Amino acid sequence: MEKITAGPLLSQINFPDDLKKLSKADLQQVCDELRQFIIDTVSVNGGHFGASLGVVELSVALHYMYNTPDDQLVWDVGHQAYGHKILTGRRDVFHTNRRYGGISGFPKRDESEYDAFGVGHSSTSISAALGMAIASKNLGETHRHHVAIIGDGAMTAGLPFEAMNHAGVSNANILVILNDNNMSIDANVGALKEYLTDITTSPTYNKLRDDIWKLLGKLPYPEFQREMAGKLGTSLKGMVSRQSNLFEALGLRYFGPIDGHNVHKLVETIKDLKDIPGPKLLHIKTVKGKGYDLAEKDQTLWHAPGLFDKVTGQINKKIATKPEAPKYQDVFGHTIVELAEANPLVMGITPAMPSGCSLKYMMELMPDRAIDVGIAEQHAVTLSAGLATRGMKVFCNIYSSFMQRAYDMVIHDVAIQKLPVVFCLDRGGVVGDDGGTHHGAYDLAFMRCIPNMIVSAPMDEADLRHLMYTAQLPEQNLPFVIRYPRGQGVMPEWRVPMQKMQIGQGRKIQDGNDVAILTIGHVGNFAVNACRSLATEDIIPAHYDMRFVKPLDEAMLHEVAQKFTKIVTVEDGTVVGGFGAAILEFMNAHNYKASVKMLGIPDRVIEHGKPEELHRECGYDAQGIADAVRELATAMVVNL
Amino acid sequence: MEKITAGPLLSQINFPDDLKKLSKADLQQVCDELRQFIIDTVSVNGGHFGASLGVVELSVALHYMYNTPDDQLVWDVGHQAYGHKILTGRRDVFHTNRRYGGISGFPKRDESEYDAFGVGHSSTSISAALGMAIASKNLGETHRHHVAIIGDGAMTAGLPFEAMNHAGVSNANILVILNDNNMSIDANVGALKEYLTDITTSPTYNKLRDDIWKLLGKLPYPEFQREMAGKLGTSLKGMVSRQSNLFEALGLRYFGPIDGHNVHKLVETIKDLKDIPGPKLLHIKTVKGKGYDLAEKDQTLWHAPGLFDKVTGQINKKIATKPEAPKYQDVFGHTIVELAEANPLVMGITPAMPSGCSLKYMMELMPDRAIDVGIAEQHAVTLSAGLATRGMKVFCNIYSSFMQRAYDMVIHDVAIQKLPVVFCLDRGGVVGDDGGTHHGAYDLAFMRCIPNMIVSAPMDEADLRHLMYTAQLPEQNLPFVIRYPRGQGVMPEWRVPMQKMQIGQGRKIQDGNDVAILTIGHVGNFAVNACRSLATEDIIPAHYDMRFVKPLDEAMLHEVAQKFTKIVTVEDGTVVGGFGAAILEFMNAHNYKASVKMLGIPDRVIEHGKPEELHRECGYDAQGIADAVRELATAMVVNL
Repeated sequence: MEKITAGPLLSQINFPDDLKKLSKADLQQVCDELRQFIIDTVSVNGGHFGASLGVVELSVALHYMYNTPDDQLVWDVGHQAYGHKILTGRRDVFHTNRRYGGISGFPKRDESEYDAFGVGHSSTSISAALGMAIASKNLGETHRHHVAIIGDGAMTAGLPFEAMNHAGVSNANILVILNDNNMSIDANVGALKEYLTDITTSPTYNKLRDDIWKLLGKLPYPEFQREMAGKLGTSLKGMVSRQSNLFEALGLRYFGPIDGHNVHKLVETIKDLKDIPGPKLLHIKTVKGKGYDLAEKDQTLWHAPGLFDKVTGQINKKIATKPEAPKYQDVFGHTIVELAEANPLVMGITPAMPSGCSLKYMMELMPDRAIDVGIAEQHAVTLSAGLATRGMKVFCNIYSSFMQRAYDMVIHDVAIQKLPVVFCLDRGGVVGDDGGTHHGAYDLAFMRCIPNMIVSAPMDEADLRHLMYTAQLPEQNLPFVIRYPRGQGVMPEWRVPMQKMQIGQGRKIQDGNDVAILTIGHVGNFAVNACRSLATEDIIPAHYDMRFVKPLDEAMLHEVAQKFTKIVTVEDGTVVGGFGAAILEFMNAHNYKASVKMLGIPDRVIEHGKPEELHRECGYDAQGIADAVRELATAMVVNL
Repeated sequence: MEKITAGPLLSQINFPDDLKKLSKADLQQVCDELRQFIIDTVSVNGGHFGASLGVVELSVALHYMYNTPDDQLVWDVGHQAYGHKILTGRRDVFHTNRRYGGISGFPKRDESEYDAFGVGHSSTSISAALGMAIASKNLGETHRHHVAIIGDGAMTAGLPFEAMNHAGVSNANILVILNDNNMSIDANVGALKEYLTDITTSPTYNKLRDDIWKLLGKLPYPEFQREMAGKLGTSLKGMVSRQSNLFEALGLRYFGPIDGHNVHKLVETIKDLKDIPGPKLLHIKTVKGKGYDLAEKDQTLWHAPGLFDKVTGQINKKIATKPEAPKYQDVFGHTIVELAEANPLVMGITPAMPSGCSLKYMMELMPDRAIDVGIAEQHAVTLSAGLATRGMKVFCNIYSSFMQRAYDMVIHDVAIQKLPVVFCLDRGGVVGDDGGTHHGAYDLAFMRCIPNMIVSAPMDEADLRHLMYTAQLPEQNLPFVIRYPRGQGVMPEWRVPMQKMQIGQGRKIQDGNDVAILTIGHVGNFAVNACRSLATEDIIPAHYDMRFVKPLDEAMLHEVAQKFTKIVTVEDGTVVGGFGAAILEFMNAHNYKASVKMLGIPDRVIEHGKPEELHRECGYDAQGIADAVRELATAMVVNL
């Protein structure tokens, strides 16, 4: 971790009060120094990049004009809040951003009183800020301002619409700043994006006035035209601005669009808006990656590029000395193309993560069959259900923690109807640097309690391929979860021929005695390593890769339970109600009395860090598994 | 169950093909007979009422004009689809509607091929129909039409917005019919409602044209005015309709508003729309309860009035011979008022269920502190989180099965931040007539796996009050679930003084031997009855009301586990990962080897019926509990 020196003005700003002491003329320099500080730090320490560069001016203007933390800023998603963090007491720890034990990459209430609301998932800011504004109203604290800063990508989700439908009739003192840069992580999609482009490039009011002017120009009364146009202009402006704007239709006063990189314009506009009560929206146009040329040009690549040489723009890549295992994401991305080439019914759906989940390969080759629906997990699932009613074999790929957003749709639209949608749950388990909001910790628990669901997790790339192949076969007629982690698998030679798998069938990895290890998914590899190290101590546990959390391989479990009274379960998910609990339910139902040591994510929120650091912390890395086996193998189990 | 005779035309219509044989002139009579058939049947057999009356003409027009089931109709929510059901092969079984073993009160795919998509929860129709439309396009079946029929209430949810954002850029052949009646179950709320009223009463185009006409009227060239207005009209119509309409802004062509009770107008309009490709929206105005005077006047009461005298409009009420226990809903509704009177920080939030959950009492008395946010569960939860950051003590009341919609918000916005929002989960457990989509079956499982959550369920009205009181105390600083069923409690004298409860403390209901019964929530009363009947056989199990699923009362469980090796757990929720599983996890963690018989909702979708019928079916009514205890008490438990 490398600590960076800030520029002369920025280094004097510890808190927004210091910023407020500067004259307006200094603000541009503050912006320049802040931008440079972000570039300097992220290039050597990593983190999100383009989003924070895009709101440098906005961050400075907001803290210059508002009385934070009394006034409340809610940064939607939050990966753009680096400038905010640096200006609010965290400049000197910013180099620990997203590191184990360091500050979070997102605003977090227990990190700073300036972080009014913890974020990570998109689209929550308007609801949260509205709640704050209503509370202030009810508490009689009418001096407080409440600002939600939300991107046009986040705006495509349903939640902001629900919030605006309420805000528009609330009279609450809330300002929504729509940070419009045409992007989520990938390019933003959908009708709203086109609408925003439309009102930006040709505001309705101007367009209407121009059209009328033209019409009038055809009339034979030239001396009257100017007067007429003036009157019409005034009259139309009132009507059109109230009626013709999506946000005005929802009861928010609309202002903008203005240039979000003009800090003086921002300051002036905010000053004006502070005097206007009620719900309002300011539309600003920004460029993601602003001020770093390469990032402006390839915004998806530079969303979170990893480490790079800030001068050359060369992104550091690990140099592999031998063939490397691919990412599970790429195995998914290439395998779905193979399947779709063979089966015309195969389709792919992603809510705004085509690069992250690698559906982009299929989208490029088969744009009609692979669709990015925007940040809209609920729609992604119900759309998939609709497609499935017409016989399509849909792979709906959603990150595990984002699937929490579409839980009802999984139950109500897919599972109850027994529609054979395939849910590829990417980023199951701890995800690393993104931390608590993003860990896929709960999916095994919340999916296995749903009737009709098949819930599986491959231990390696080959199994991911076999599971995907199996899930799209004509005879497969139930919803099917395939859950895998972020990052690398274990098979450099991963492109094996695909085979049909038996639903609910696991496999024995090794025979053993005294203790049986039952694993689900990729963590099976940690168990393999544990077994290797235990072998040096002459401890030989059996190891079973269950493959399916639901249905369980009952035949295999009977074999296990009849042979072993000491069992270790390992999962990259919560130990409350998850895979281990499923094993307990089986044991109890069949009256087996084994002692089960359940390893997994404990019942608390795990913070950020490298996955290996977090596996260690949670005690289910190879060493943790070996410790658990050793302890059981040598313990006297007392039957009460 | 009483079977009703249909009118002369309706009795000949078994399927839409029969309807299509009639002349247009007969359609009004079909509508009249259909309306009468619904009134006749629902008055004596029960069910939803106002919604289906409001779409009689639409149902007839759709099946007259579209080639169902080849063309696909998706009825949002579905409680308005009685007319559709009667016209599609279910007239003669319509009297079994919502009865145990009878037809469902909602469209259901396995009930009829005319039910293109199973519904129950609101707001799914556009996503589902869009999926079907995209599938048809990809399959080359360009002749198919796909129609989503959605109310203005359902339109306030986020999901339809997500769907329209996608539909608007999709070129899919989809028609959205916006059935605008200003209602959900209660009056619809929010900015969208006001917007729809606005465009209905004064369409922008008309308003603009009128204004310009007035302006021109002030000019000194009378002969030119008419010509000018005509030209302006044509020109403006094009501009305004594309720009000024919320739905046009999202890329859907907008048509309407038209009178939804004029069946000929509907037929003509649908005929025209069938020739217009791409995504489009038809706005129709209807009256909920149309054709039954009382239902038109009190639309909330007549949403689902129960049995009534169709001539007098007298709604049948059970006549109580002795003081009756109140509904849990009313205990909530009155208790929150008491709490709010004493504690100015208490607030109440409901997503569109003020009557159903009884927050209406507080809304009437304290409109600033009790808010109906519309059908917007996600917003309800994140708004509550925002309020909680500012110190408010928010009771966010959401039906258990609807809470599935806000699962991510519970985790991400409330639990991770440890905000002390109180979630009152109404309609936990089987709900009865509404069936599989509405049972609150999964909540204990999906809530207890979330860190920082307190999960409780009162066994009676007094405990509901104590839990509510405890949850709003200043020292209470964690999210807090209070879960209770639909319907009556057990305490006619329910208004007991409120007391602080110890978090995670259960209570012993009775001592016993051999077998311990552990219950959670209202089903504890079933166990009390079971114990009473077992006593006549000299079987005396112990009975513990756990009150909390999380944290568990570990002291009590140690007592139980040290004394008993035979345990029955009882919950009105899924046995997969729920309360029983929590007990197993405890037993396993402490190495107890009890045999646990887990009673609850089995791992399949339970259909509709009276709650008692479903409790019986699931085996956890008093008899089921007694059977389980008897079996355990007399069994030899074999330790393997």
